[in-house]
Amino acid sequence: MTDINKAIEQLDWRKEPRGLYEPIEYTLASGGKRLRPTLAITAAEAIINGGLINGDAIDDVLPAALALEVFHNFTLMHDDVMDRAEVRRGRPTVHVKWNDNTAILSGDQMLIEAYKQLAKVPAGKLPQVLNWFNEMATGICEGQQYDVDFEHMSQVGVDDYLKMIELKTSVLLANAMRIGGYIAGANEAQQKALYGYGLHLGIAFQIQDDILDVYGESRTFGKAIGGDIRCNKKTILLITALETADAESKAELLQWLMATDRDEEKVAAVTEIYNRLGVRHSCEAIMEDHTAQALAELEHLPQNSATEQLRELAERLVTRKS
Amino acid sequence: MTDINKAIEQLDWRKEPRGLYEPIEYTLASGGKRLRPTLAITAAEAIINGGLINGDAIDDVLPAALALEVFHNFTLMHDDVMDRAEVRRGRPTVHVKWNDNTAILSGDQMLIEAYKQLAKVPAGKLPQVLNWFNEMATGICEGQQYDVDFEHMSQVGVDDYLKMIELKTSVLLANAMRIGGYIAGANEAQQKALYGYGLHLGIAFQIQDDILDVYGESRTFGKAIGGDIRCNKKTILLITALETADAESKAELLQWLMATDRDEEKVAAVTEIYNRLGVRHSCEAIMEDHTAQALAELEHLPQNSATEQLRELAERLVTRKS
Repeated sequence: MTDINKAIEQLDWRKEPRGLYEPIEYTLASGGKRLRPTLAITAAEAIINGGLINGDAIDDVLPAALALEVFHNFTLMHDDVMDRAEVRRGRPTVHVKWNDNTAILSGDQMLIEAYKQLAKVPAGKLPQVLNWFNEMATGICEGQQYDVDFEHMSQVGVDDYLKMIELKTSVLLANAMRIGGYIAGANEAQQKALYGYGLHLGIAFQIQDDILDVYGESRTFGKAIGGDIRCNKKTILLITALETADAESKAELLQWLMATDRDEEKVAAVTEIYNRLGVRHSCEAIMEDHTAQALAELEHLPQNSATEQLRELAERLVTRKS
Repeated sequence: MTDINKAIEQLDWRKEPRGLYEPIEYTLASGGKRLRPTLAITAAEAIINGGLINGDAIDDVLPAALALEVFHNFTLMHDDVMDRAEVRRGRPTVHVKWNDNTAILSGDQMLIEAYKQLAKVPAGKLPQVLNWFNEMATGICEGQQYDVDFEHMSQVGVDDYLKMIELKTSVLLANAMRIGGYIAGANEAQQKALYGYGLHLGIAFQIQDDILDVYGESRTFGKAIGGDIRCNKKTILLITALETADAESKAELLQWLMATDRDEEKVAAVTEIYNRLGVRHSCEAIMEDHTAQALAELEHLPQNSATEQLRELAERLVTRKS
């Protein structure tokens, strides 16, 4: 695996005006899983030779991998403003450390920087990659808007939820796979399999995130348990509970959703209702179904050490504790 | 001249989620000079045959022209949030009509929509156009940041100001010209001339904007006169006055800059100091110099009805009253 962190460190942000570039440097230096560029490069490796790629091959795919990571961090910078989130990866968010205007403008510049990386994709493959990237970016903005809309909707079904997270999370992973593979020469059937893997992986990943927010251990999860319950976030757990509850449990749940003054008690009570309704089990079943679908897509790819990594990654994501 | 307004109207924003696309439709329907796409198309016409272009030729350049207009409107949507501007083109700004989050997210989507248009540029020319577009977009973000920085700097010189407006305004006009001409087949010397025309035109345009804010007639200018003076905006007039004033006038000017309670009196007094120092004349001289440089660039282009339009446009911009 190419050291994506090293490539990110080598991006030069010591440019003027400092007020524009310093927040970008700060954000990209704050770590994160680097999941998206890792997927793009591993997809390329799966197609090319199932092992380390280097020289021209890595030069070809690396800019797109960086574009995906820079783009992802742009979405976080703007989302944090919109959500009024104060901490990200253990550090103050950009709008807290600087101000809202800085987060807006430096975020805009990050989006442009993503396209600057993308412009380095080999010319023959640029039009297709640019189209997929634009389609992906649109999906993420649409997903974010649906997420906002859901806050004010009384009826949100599991299908609505799955559509929303497909746009907000999965299309980025799916396109990371497809773009990486395409640049490495994947044929259409392989592109489809790579895309499908990323799409199902993303859905499973987001469902696990929702489950961990309730059933994780705060020490390993890295944030307080029950945050989603406290703010009535329409997670797949809450949506499933509202869809499947009998009249009595539903009334009890709705009662708790209105409570804003007894946080600890609320987390315990809602978790107890989830337990009673078997919500965790239902959600895990959906997650496992998507994980299985992701793994099935790998059958259409060359079987080598890179596809093995992708298999391990899918299995690790759904058993992760953080 | 191709009807750029018609092409903009034909962009389809009746898509879901409405919360994302409605503000984009609202912004693009609010008019404006359509200067940037007009420049791109006129540049192409100047290169191709000096007249109306149609068929393949217009199909080739129109997407880039639309990308420039959509991009420009994206910058306005985010700038209005950052500046807390409440009215744009006689209508409430997006963050006022909806809210800040909507203006941020729909603005992001507009930037992506600009790149979607750009992806339609003929494949052989896409890499160069994408690079120029990215360079331009970066310049505009940098210019916006310098503009913000200037607010807090005690010493800003005319050269700093010219550098700032070159980034914030001129690179967009310059790249509109260069991109339009390049797609139409301009050679390197012609690309350089087109770029130079746009660059100098943009600087002259912005200086005239500053002058009109003080010396325009409110009826034709479309907004209240003296707005820049009221908020101590570091225009070329104020910067020139501070650079050229004798000690006494400078002290008087600085005194007025601190006044926040006597708006009408302040506008009259500062204008009187400008008059005494001959600031308007100095600024007009710089503007006319840039207009002359813009016109000189046209000499390197084919002489036809399109270059004639560009000549008239430059002359009209510096004598405009609004």
